[in-house]
Amino acid sequence: MKDSEIKRKILKFFYEKAEGYVSGEDISEALGFSRANSWKYINKIRNDGYEIEAVPHLGYKLKSQPDKLYAYEISRGVNTDIIGKKSIFYYDSVSSTNDTAYELAEKGEPEGTIVIAEGQTCGKGRMGRKWLSPKGKGIYLSIILRPDMEIDRIPSITLVMALSVQRTIKKMCDINAGIKWPNDILINGRKVCGILTEMKAQPDVADFLIVGIGMNINAEKKQIPPEAVSLKMEIGREINRTSFLRCLLEEIEKDYKKIKREGFPSLRDECRKLSTVIDKQIKVREHNKLTEGIAVDIDEKGALVIRTKTGDVKRIFSGDVSIR
Amino acid sequence: MKDSEIKRKILKFFYEKAEGYVSGEDISEALGFSRANSWKYINKIRNDGYEIEAVPHLGYKLKSQPDKLYAYEISRGVNTDIIGKKSIFYYDSVSSTNDTAYELAEKGEPEGTIVIAEGQTCGKGRMGRKWLSPKGKGIYLSIILRPDMEIDRIPSITLVMALSVQRTIKKMCDINAGIKWPNDILINGRKVCGILTEMKAQPDVADFLIVGIGMNINAEKKQIPPEAVSLKMEIGREINRTSFLRCLLEEIEKDYKKIKREGFPSLRDECRKLSTVIDKQIKVREHNKLTEGIAVDIDEKGALVIRTKTGDVKRIFSGDVSIR
Repeated sequence: MKDSEIKRKILKFFYEKAEGYVSGEDISEALGFSRANSWKYINKIRNDGYEIEAVPHLGYKLKSQPDKLYAYEISRGVNTDIIGKKSIFYYDSVSSTNDTAYELAEKGEPEGTIVIAEGQTCGKGRMGRKWLSPKGKGIYLSIILRPDMEIDRIPSITLVMALSVQRTIKKMCDINAGIKWPNDILINGRKVCGILTEMKAQPDVADFLIVGIGMNINAEKKQIPPEAVSLKMEIGREINRTSFLRCLLEEIEKDYKKIKREGFPSLRDECRKLSTVIDKQIKVREHNKLTEGIAVDIDEKGALVIRTKTGDVKRIFSGDVSIR
Repeated sequence: MKDSEIKRKILKFFYEKAEGYVSGEDISEALGFSRANSWKYINKIRNDGYEIEAVPHLGYKLKSQPDKLYAYEISRGVNTDIIGKKSIFYYDSVSSTNDTAYELAEKGEPEGTIVIAEGQTCGKGRMGRKWLSPKGKGIYLSIILRPDMEIDRIPSITLVMALSVQRTIKKMCDINAGIKWPNDILINGRKVCGILTEMKAQPDVADFLIVGIGMNINAEKKQIPPEAVSLKMEIGREINRTSFLRCLLEEIEKDYKKIKREGFPSLRDECRKLSTVIDKQIKVREHNKLTEGIAVDIDEKGALVIRTKTGDVKRIFSGDVSIR
């Protein structure tokens, strides 16, 4: 048995006991271990940041969990079938969770596999930009998806994931965030979350998508860019990242199933309602093309519909929006 | 200096001398080598398959080149600026040239880099199919492209590359091949070439494309599938693969520059004219969707336009066509 597997089993023991004490004998017996060996693993779990009290004659008691997004902690409490249920890769630090997830997807990891890191040294944003990822202060998550979808339906997935983030923020913090089409979530105009979707594809069909979500959760003002905000800065208290992430994965799964089953139109109204750009005078940079006008709608494919000065109507699938 | 670099320099000497003899002394002097060392490298070149005659008092003479697609042989004779000019990766055998090129592109190899292999153990076709790649009998080529193009213009690149292949076959063998939209080149209904385009992309813009071209050049009937044909089977003699590949790279560069500069409409008529499916009753399988009807046109984006039984007009960006 691997160390992580043994630790999982012991933790499960504790969680099943809830308020009570677990005796060293019970653990030893259940795992077929010597008392000394059980003791060794209890200490390993303590080294992971769990607080475990030992009381003579009563046994061990789990007093608190560390502020870490450990795979076991996520999976044991998440109510999903696919996303983050079967396969979770947890890292203390990676260059970029998207890059790690991309490599895993190329090696065949299945749909729903997630990569989580406490910190990223080179978190990525759109157009080669960086995403500052202070350690232990955010959620840096990448999800492997293998939707059997025409490639022109892919952009709407980013938009729907933004919706899942928005809804999680509402549920967990009671904040009404807005969606800056196509991939940012804002609170009072400041960025709390960015989404970067990357894919390996043939011209008509995606082999896989990586949806990367970078969120400022408990970051302090000085740890993130001036145009950004964290949930903690907004509500004035720390957020339990584990609970937040579980809720996020559940929302994502719900929306992903819906878009696969019913298509984007089923979520279009909600995206439109939460959009921060509709009815605004905007500029959109679409790699090497600039379009100016009024954002009038999000269409049935998730494209932004813009009416230009000359009255032309243009549809844009992805780009950088600035509100004028 | 690397071995390959030294061999290149010596071969250059021979090619510049054309019909004459090169003295061992000249080689030694030019490279700053001892006579023994020059002799060692002449032998290495012989081991690569070059026939080099040594005549006392006259020197060395290059009598013939091997039937190999060595990087130096391609680059020295190809008249291109980008494609296969700066960077050629040559292998005796790889799993798939597309996979190798994909890895190289991820590491940052520039546009125009090509990967050539004498054989592939796992040559890839569309929809997870295999491409049989008998060693030394075909051209198995992958090209790294980094077009700054909207993603919906990408499918037309495959079609234009098919055009480049068609034109090369015409020039080199005087055969009028047809293009089976979107990615096969046929001679009398039998497949002589398939193209597989893969990309890494964000939903709106491709980071890079890999265009893979698999061609049956000198393969015998029994080495390839029954529905396929090689150029040798068709014209009854061996084709010089090096000359063919140089010509192909030149045609590809010309067409690629044109589509980047003027867009697909500039090549649309030629694609339409050479299409084997226009006016035919067809079925198209687009991953999980089947469309039946008459192929009536190729539109300004390279999509196939189909009129269904009910009179509806549908546009398809990529798929598997079968003629009924």
